[in-house]
Amino acid sequence: MPASGPEANTAPRPVWSIDPRTDERREQVGTEATPAAVDAAVLAAHAAWDTLADRGVRSAFLRSTADELERSREELVAVADAETALGAPRLNGELTRTCYQLRSFADTVDEGSFLDVIISHPDASATPPVPDLRRYKIPLGVVAVYSASNFPFAFSVAGGDTASAFAAGCPVVVKAHPDHPATSELTAAAVRRAAAEHAVPEGVLGLVHGFDAGVALIGHPLVAAAGFTGSVRGGRALFDAAAARPVPIPFHGELGSLNPVLVTPAAAAERPEEIGSGLAASMTMGTGQFCVKPGLVLVPEGAAGDELLKVLGQSLGEVGAGVMLDRRMRENFVTGVAERAQLPHVEAPVRPGPGPDAHTVGPGFLTAPAAVLAQDQSAHALLLEECFGPVTIVARYADPAEAQTLLARLPGNLTATLHVSGPEAAGAEGDPGLLARLTPLAGRVLVNAWPTGVAVAPAQHHGGPYPATTSTSTSVGTTAAERWLRPVTYQSTPDALLPPELRESNPLNLPRVVDGLRED
Amino acid sequence: MPASGPEANTAPRPVWSIDPRTDERREQVGTEATPAAVDAAVLAAHAAWDTLADRGVRSAFLRSTADELERSREELVAVADAETALGAPRLNGELTRTCYQLRSFADTVDEGSFLDVIISHPDASATPPVPDLRRYKIPLGVVAVYSASNFPFAFSVAGGDTASAFAAGCPVVVKAHPDHPATSELTAAAVRRAAAEHAVPEGVLGLVHGFDAGVALIGHPLVAAAGFTGSVRGGRALFDAAAARPVPIPFHGELGSLNPVLVTPAAAAERPEEIGSGLAASMTMGTGQFCVKPGLVLVPEGAAGDELLKVLGQSLGEVGAGVMLDRRMRENFVTGVAERAQLPHVEAPVRPGPGPDAHTVGPGFLTAPAAVLAQDQSAHALLLEECFGPVTIVARYADPAEAQTLLARLPGNLTATLHVSGPEAAGAEGDPGLLARLTPLAGRVLVNAWPTGVAVAPAQHHGGPYPATTSTSTSVGTTAAERWLRPVTYQSTPDALLPPELRESNPLNLPRVVDGLRED
Repeated sequence: MPASGPEANTAPRPVWSIDPRTDERREQVGTEATPAAVDAAVLAAHAAWDTLADRGVRSAFLRSTADELERSREELVAVADAETALGAPRLNGELTRTCYQLRSFADTVDEGSFLDVIISHPDASATPPVPDLRRYKIPLGVVAVYSASNFPFAFSVAGGDTASAFAAGCPVVVKAHPDHPATSELTAAAVRRAAAEHAVPEGVLGLVHGFDAGVALIGHPLVAAAGFTGSVRGGRALFDAAAARPVPIPFHGELGSLNPVLVTPAAAAERPEEIGSGLAASMTMGTGQFCVKPGLVLVPEGAAGDELLKVLGQSLGEVGAGVMLDRRMRENFVTGVAERAQLPHVEAPVRPGPGPDAHTVGPGFLTAPAAVLAQDQSAHALLLEECFGPVTIVARYADPAEAQTLLARLPGNLTATLHVSGPEAAGAEGDPGLLARLTPLAGRVLVNAWPTGVAVAPAQHHGGPYPATTSTSTSVGTTAAERWLRPVTYQSTPDALLPPELRESNPLNLPRVVDGLRED
Repeated sequence: MPASGPEANTAPRPVWSIDPRTDERREQVGTEATPAAVDAAVLAAHAAWDTLADRGVRSAFLRSTADELERSREELVAVADAETALGAPRLNGELTRTCYQLRSFADTVDEGSFLDVIISHPDASATPPVPDLRRYKIPLGVVAVYSASNFPFAFSVAGGDTASAFAAGCPVVVKAHPDHPATSELTAAAVRRAAAEHAVPEGVLGLVHGFDAGVALIGHPLVAAAGFTGSVRGGRALFDAAAARPVPIPFHGELGSLNPVLVTPAAAAERPEEIGSGLAASMTMGTGQFCVKPGLVLVPEGAAGDELLKVLGQSLGEVGAGVMLDRRMRENFVTGVAERAQLPHVEAPVRPGPGPDAHTVGPGFLTAPAAVLAQDQSAHALLLEECFGPVTIVARYADPAEAQTLLARLPGNLTATLHVSGPEAAGAEGDPGLLARLTPLAGRVLVNAWPTGVAVAPAQHHGGPYPATTSTSTSVGTTAAERWLRPVTYQSTPDALLPPELRESNPLNLPRVVDGLRED
């Protein structure tokens, strides 16, 4: 509830940790950050910047952060489960992944390719002549990180945005997500213990709570870039604020995604059970609260497709009800499903909605003809909007052209998935252009796999055309550090004055491209 | 003058080529593009996209474009000189540079590193497990290019933005600059002849004239990114429009830069003549109409600095008057200099302003105490804004701290330059932190050199903190192609269905990083 009177404005609002299994308050974690507190956090982060200049400090700090998190594993998982109801197995896995991610970025820092060192020696024969030029990448400054609701570890205080920012040499101020404020504070404490081990000031990681604090953060003159994972509405508002600043800053936001899946008739005929049960597992993972949940599945009409859906329904029955991250999400899910289910031509073979008790939701799916979904001006457009929770929309298509027409209507996505038969996978049968036509839709394209479970790897790309992300960058994988860097070139600079990264003798033994050729 | 009546709105406005040496119309080049014409140009460009998918076609097309421009050199230079008064020697050099740039990007396309191929093989031991992931970069789509006034070749129709977009596989629609519409049309014709040689549709390069056409272009749903070189005002308006779209697009704009130069007391004492005459040459190059013109020079007080300025004044006298690109720029220069010169504490040892005849301007410089310029709230802030034309502001500083205080006040820049003495350059004397403190100011940092004459080379970076550029990218050099690409990752995709760039056997022999290691 927003504060109203002048008195209410002076008393900072309390921040509560809430148990979604009961909707009851667990404890007061602290108070929402005032504008002065946001300013102080950014100034403290900025003051810590210099200590990250040394790459050795950065990688050691990242590794110690992973160690500290693991040391606090028991408490972190217990508190996160109490706040999010995601369950200990999933949260233990997520914490392991988060630590792996921190150590991966430490390796990235040590290896040094991300500095992108390029050297051009003088060439008087060029027009205009080329002087001595030496380029590498330097950190942008304080990074604002907006935590996600659905990943209390991996996309939160010490998640991918923070880890990649530290790797790049940038201090961070995190805006905590209200779904897990206590977990956020515990994580921040672990990060600060790790910082202290390497004489990095605690201010290297700021943590603020509250909607207004998030707005103040994006407008702070010393904030140089932002990372965000969340809704289209919230992300777009912050993107707009970042762009409207006197000095605009890069805003790397992951906003929303439908993650379409196309099942070919041959695939449906070949593996109806495997695809149906795989879909059920993927769309209910984390109670359907994954940004890469398959939210739209194109299934052929006819017996094979019917069989696939039968298996899907059976599998969903076995999954059973789950608890969502908070009451608002649960209510939005129930309302959102009901609105969609009442549209003409929409059926609900397994109806998603309220679960057996007031705090749970049950998984299910809706079906509609692809031809109806592909119509230009239609109330069915709602079915092409992401609906957080354990529901997917199944579009039945009569022929491949109908499926393509529907796919062409979709906004940008994080992922697009193709399920094909064995002979189609071998290129021996089917439409050879299918994958090329799915590619414009997404940043990750999968074949005979499911999009949930985003691996941390150099070749990962977690991003896609808007609204999947607001930039062409990734928030998972080694290249995520690129977001927090800018190139700078030194021209005609005597070796003695150059930063060591760019000296001719390569004292730091960095990977370099020299005169167009990569050194070993 | 804007059209007013309904009739005026239906008749497209004429586009005139104007001679800045007389301010008279040379010829009518065509008419301003209507909204329908802009739409048609974007659709034609989009339709040509597929033909750029083949990298061999792209590099051949880029090379043929360079060949065609060289074949038309005589006419291109004559017409460009008639429209811009930049002179045949400069324009011949600029055309040579433009052709070199096109061929450099052809080499980039053939070499293939810009595709950034990264492959991660499956690793079941990771958390979560790593499936087969293969990442590379694909073109974004139609790129809108806004030409610069001051480079009718190198930053115009076939300049760096267009060349890098073609290299990335993106078709282009150029919004011509009104200072050289005839040159723009001739260049476009050359590009289209080159396209025809490789069966690329002519629509691969659209060309539109008119302010309104530029606004329509940035809002077109099929425009996927934009490049811009020009003023802060125009660039910011287009940046804002790009960010406000239903689907925001990347806007890579180069807007404005003061390009500060710091001369240490030791440098002034050691080489007053060399620095004074070098500054005169750099600040008057192209009649001071370079985005990297040194616009603010910090010179120590005292005899050595006085001597440097004496040489500067003498050298400027030898340069003499020049013609600017158009009447509006000339008038803005004269007004802008007069406004600055009348401020308290400002002196004009060599007064810049109107030249000996009505169509020319004479070079000069203004001086002011650094302490006055560094004041927070001051009419002198005007002196820290870019002034297009042959003028520079000389800030006299009493001690190094005063110089640093002034530098810390500056907005972002394309370049920052340091002039030091021999012993300082060797690191044997002086302040070892000077270069590190200049680095946050700019995207290119120079020592004992001048920022004009931007080399085309892999290690080049032509960009900098806002307002120098609106993104962290460069518009010159090999890495400029990155602006028009986005990564996509294929997961668990059978070899037969993969694009050839990502197949296991590497049939295109591309540079790759596989499982974290670079292949040879």
